[in-house]
Amino acid sequence: MLTYKAPLRDMKFLINDVFDFQTHYKDLDNGSNADPETVDMILQGMADFSENVLAPLYKKADAEGCHFDNGEVTTPEGFKEAYDQFIEGGWHGISYPEEYGGMNLPMSLNLIKAEMIGTANWPWSMYPGLSTGCINTLMQYGDETQKNTYLPKLIEGTWAGTMCLTEPQCGTDLGQVKSKAVPQDDGSYQLSGTKIFISSGEHDLTENIVHIVLARLPDAPEGTRGISLFIVPKFLPDAQGEIGERNGVTCGSIEHKMGISSSATCVLNFDAATAYLIGEPNKGLKAMFTFMNTARIGTGIEGLAHTELSFQNALPYAKERRSMRALSGTKDPDKAADAIIHHADVRRMLLTQKAFAEGGRSMIYHAARYADKMAQGITRGDDAEFEKWDDKLGFYTPIIKGFLTELGIEAAKHGQQIYGGHGYIKEWGMELIARDARIATLYEGTTGVQALDLLGRKVILQSRGKIIRDYTSSIMKWCGEYALDKDMRKFVWALTKLCAEWNTLTVRLMLMARKDREIISAASDDFLMYSGYVMMGYHWARMAAVAYDKLENGGTESPEFYTAKTQTAEFYFDKILPRTSGHAESMVAPSESMTAMDIDSFAFLD
Amino acid sequence: MLTYKAPLRDMKFLINDVFDFQTHYKDLDNGSNADPETVDMILQGMADFSENVLAPLYKKADAEGCHFDNGEVTTPEGFKEAYDQFIEGGWHGISYPEEYGGMNLPMSLNLIKAEMIGTANWPWSMYPGLSTGCINTLMQYGDETQKNTYLPKLIEGTWAGTMCLTEPQCGTDLGQVKSKAVPQDDGSYQLSGTKIFISSGEHDLTENIVHIVLARLPDAPEGTRGISLFIVPKFLPDAQGEIGERNGVTCGSIEHKMGISSSATCVLNFDAATAYLIGEPNKGLKAMFTFMNTARIGTGIEGLAHTELSFQNALPYAKERRSMRALSGTKDPDKAADAIIHHADVRRMLLTQKAFAEGGRSMIYHAARYADKMAQGITRGDDAEFEKWDDKLGFYTPIIKGFLTELGIEAAKHGQQIYGGHGYIKEWGMELIARDARIATLYEGTTGVQALDLLGRKVILQSRGKIIRDYTSSIMKWCGEYALDKDMRKFVWALTKLCAEWNTLTVRLMLMARKDREIISAASDDFLMYSGYVMMGYHWARMAAVAYDKLENGGTESPEFYTAKTQTAEFYFDKILPRTSGHAESMVAPSESMTAMDIDSFAFLD
Repeated sequence: MLTYKAPLRDMKFLINDVFDFQTHYKDLDNGSNADPETVDMILQGMADFSENVLAPLYKKADAEGCHFDNGEVTTPEGFKEAYDQFIEGGWHGISYPEEYGGMNLPMSLNLIKAEMIGTANWPWSMYPGLSTGCINTLMQYGDETQKNTYLPKLIEGTWAGTMCLTEPQCGTDLGQVKSKAVPQDDGSYQLSGTKIFISSGEHDLTENIVHIVLARLPDAPEGTRGISLFIVPKFLPDAQGEIGERNGVTCGSIEHKMGISSSATCVLNFDAATAYLIGEPNKGLKAMFTFMNTARIGTGIEGLAHTELSFQNALPYAKERRSMRALSGTKDPDKAADAIIHHADVRRMLLTQKAFAEGGRSMIYHAARYADKMAQGITRGDDAEFEKWDDKLGFYTPIIKGFLTELGIEAAKHGQQIYGGHGYIKEWGMELIARDARIATLYEGTTGVQALDLLGRKVILQSRGKIIRDYTSSIMKWCGEYALDKDMRKFVWALTKLCAEWNTLTVRLMLMARKDREIISAASDDFLMYSGYVMMGYHWARMAAVAYDKLENGGTESPEFYTAKTQTAEFYFDKILPRTSGHAESMVAPSESMTAMDIDSFAFLD
Repeated sequence: MLTYKAPLRDMKFLINDVFDFQTHYKDLDNGSNADPETVDMILQGMADFSENVLAPLYKKADAEGCHFDNGEVTTPEGFKEAYDQFIEGGWHGISYPEEYGGMNLPMSLNLIKAEMIGTANWPWSMYPGLSTGCINTLMQYGDETQKNTYLPKLIEGTWAGTMCLTEPQCGTDLGQVKSKAVPQDDGSYQLSGTKIFISSGEHDLTENIVHIVLARLPDAPEGTRGISLFIVPKFLPDAQGEIGERNGVTCGSIEHKMGISSSATCVLNFDAATAYLIGEPNKGLKAMFTFMNTARIGTGIEGLAHTELSFQNALPYAKERRSMRALSGTKDPDKAADAIIHHADVRRMLLTQKAFAEGGRSMIYHAARYADKMAQGITRGDDAEFEKWDDKLGFYTPIIKGFLTELGIEAAKHGQQIYGGHGYIKEWGMELIARDARIATLYEGTTGVQALDLLGRKVILQSRGKIIRDYTSSIMKWCGEYALDKDMRKFVWALTKLCAEWNTLTVRLMLMARKDREIISAASDDFLMYSGYVMMGYHWARMAAVAYDKLENGGTESPEFYTAKTQTAEFYFDKILPRTSGHAESMVAPSESMTAMDIDSFAFLD
């Protein structure tokens, strides 16, 4: 029963009205490729494909799941046909260089594309999505031979890629990786070990799968300083670059999961598999972390995707389902009851979804512009430029990943709630969105990992709070321009107050951390969520400013669209932003509230 | 992999130390039956049964689900054997009168029992649970013949019962019920219609199923004033009171759901089924609502159950799983990494679960004492006494149901989060708890329904705020006793401040509602959650007071237990109670933030 329509109107509002992507593209080497006609073509093409090919497959594929038989994985009915259509249209490699067969469009268009295919059918979108991680690694760290061997196949999509990090004993703590790679006389390695939770680790969509694998060299130092990065193709490329001999990597089983059941999550067994080192020995983890930002923003998009899909499917139900009369008086007198959209509490849930979706999209589009610059650093081979923009992106990454995926779970829950009991029944599909949304705060670093990355690493360790000072001062500067504007006043004063508080809290936590290191972990989740709500508030204020401007200066065909923006901004400031208060109070509680309890005192069950 | 141990130590803390149930039982007609030995026997018996019979069936039964074949429903393997063992032990009817075969114990012991069987295996516990609803209806509204015919079978458990309210077009808004009952010459009725979402509507556990059905008489007024209540047994009782002729009610299908898959959720088709009127014509909805409190507290227990089960299974994993080093310094130097329980953020999640479970249990045990008095009113046939205690219970009901089930969802989410990626994998079972917990905010009235019941009905309409004034004044009086106590000071001052705020907010909302009726709906969810957090805070303060007293006055064998209570109370006040701030700010936002948007402006997708 689930349907999807790409929210092109909202996307164009951000691309044209809020962020003016055309001006931004002028600064990019490949920006001229992204002229308005091309952007429209990408938007419309991906909207059509997502709405008509991917969305109809989504729910049926969940019921079917992936099939595992003796090492082979078959994806659900229709997945292969959709994938073929996708790569035949050249959609897979739009943001990669032409020399490897791409369209050389800015990375931002790839992220915009990712939202559409991901909202229509998240599990399907993970197959091309994982390849992106593999391509990025090779783009940045592969040598010329490796690039020429793998990138054209990966970019056209006839080969797929994976990222093999997790092992049974470790996920986040990759210093515990045990997989071994033993050097061979021909310069290759023999890699052995077991990797788990490998998304797209085995499937029937492509003729070959290129695994990027973390493993240790025999003489590697212990811990994180002894991890190297390898390419392990399922089929070794032959002299012509086509698939040759089968390599020693096999899928041992696939996981049975709460959701995303049509995305194959594989146990991969590497048994003296032929492997090729990428980048420098023992520097694998650093390499892995440099494009972690992109991967995590990709997962942040999942939060947006499930929010949007749940909203789109809750809205028509709220207009059709009738129950009771509105407290403010009968709305549909000729019907047995009013549509539930007339109840303020139902509107609260719908508007929460709407505010999260449109606010989250704005945050992602903003970050996408940094991703464009970062990708340009890679394409140019300019490490300094790459690092400059990667650093800037690094502030947004944990917020977009950690915060938006948490909101995705909440939004999917509201969607079920609006359906009442029907929200729990498979037939309607709202429960599928909730099950699929649930993974997003677990993989690519849990919310706890994002929170610690934000507060511990980016805010305190790397910048001593400067990153918050800089960001809030840019918000306050923007606010200053609207301080006397009658429409914007309420937003900018609320934001200004929050900016001051955000700085105070940061300083307070830094001072506390001098004596109490554990406060960083204790406060991190509250700090992450607080940061997310304020950042989203800034985006809503900016969108409101644009909308008021459009409304006041006329010339717009759809005043309703802009009015809805200002109303959603008001809703966000009235009903969502107050959540910052609780997080602010809670984050400065001493870590002792958490650390005092003896391990054996958590439960007395004997 | 899921295990369950009944938290008997915590239960006895509430029964003996906090609430002194023995003194309370002295006031009850049937209280002398609940001597300490009997209470222990019930606790231990239900703990053994829950731990050893029910818990091992839980996860396997979810994978198997219920089977539907041509109108017949087969429950998962082991369910029937467990049910037989349960009723042979006489556990089903412990709180019902001896004249109908029960043990005539106070209702509170039935609720304590319900927590244990529900935590071990919620879907299984729904079969006897639904019977309870049917028994309560007959106890209060059945005539002597009806009672004598049905109660002995229902109380021994050889027959089961259901509640048939929902129809395809309506759940909450029962005024839209269409099922018809036509009077027959013999005083019976012929009932026709379709009921959906009927838990335990058909199954193989009992030889008969007694449906309590809402339907309309031919001359009934429209809406809620035209609903009557009927008994429709699956098999009509014969002259000897044993099962006779098959009645015209059949199961059309069972629902495929997100969770509780081993609880049969049925579509029931009534086709001129023989039905017997219970109570007065057209007064069915009132009858249904009088024991709604009991049913809703039963569902509130689900929030507690899933919180407890998730906590019990997250805790050992947090002690075993190793990742990174604690920020405050290495804790397990001889291991590759520290156990994750050493990270403050992981402790935050565990302590949140613990605080919700133990705080929720305290709230339920408190309400259980009112339920004892209410049940006594029914047994005595004293309507005034019943109503007095039902009214008192009515304040706690929406909070226990609405708030604790929301916490159950959050707690189950934390449990998954502590497991990282493994929290998403079926093998571990944490995702099952999350899927099962999800239903609790949807059935027996959604959270929105509870919120409106609390703020609109109980606080504003029925009491003009008095119910909050009374409750907060009792808290403040209690706080006054501890105002100078060095341990308790921080708790009681925080609570006192919140009590003042709670009253102010209530008055503000009442004033706003004079001009803006929709504010009641707009504010209701925030008001419900705010009320829940303050109420739970009061319970934590009371538990802390008892614990400090035990610690200071010695004579206790387990100071660790009481120390953990005070530490959990501190955690609750430091890290959970601040959530009230956001709800307080948000609830007084004008309803216009929600009502202003035009229905057609929620989305622009064309």
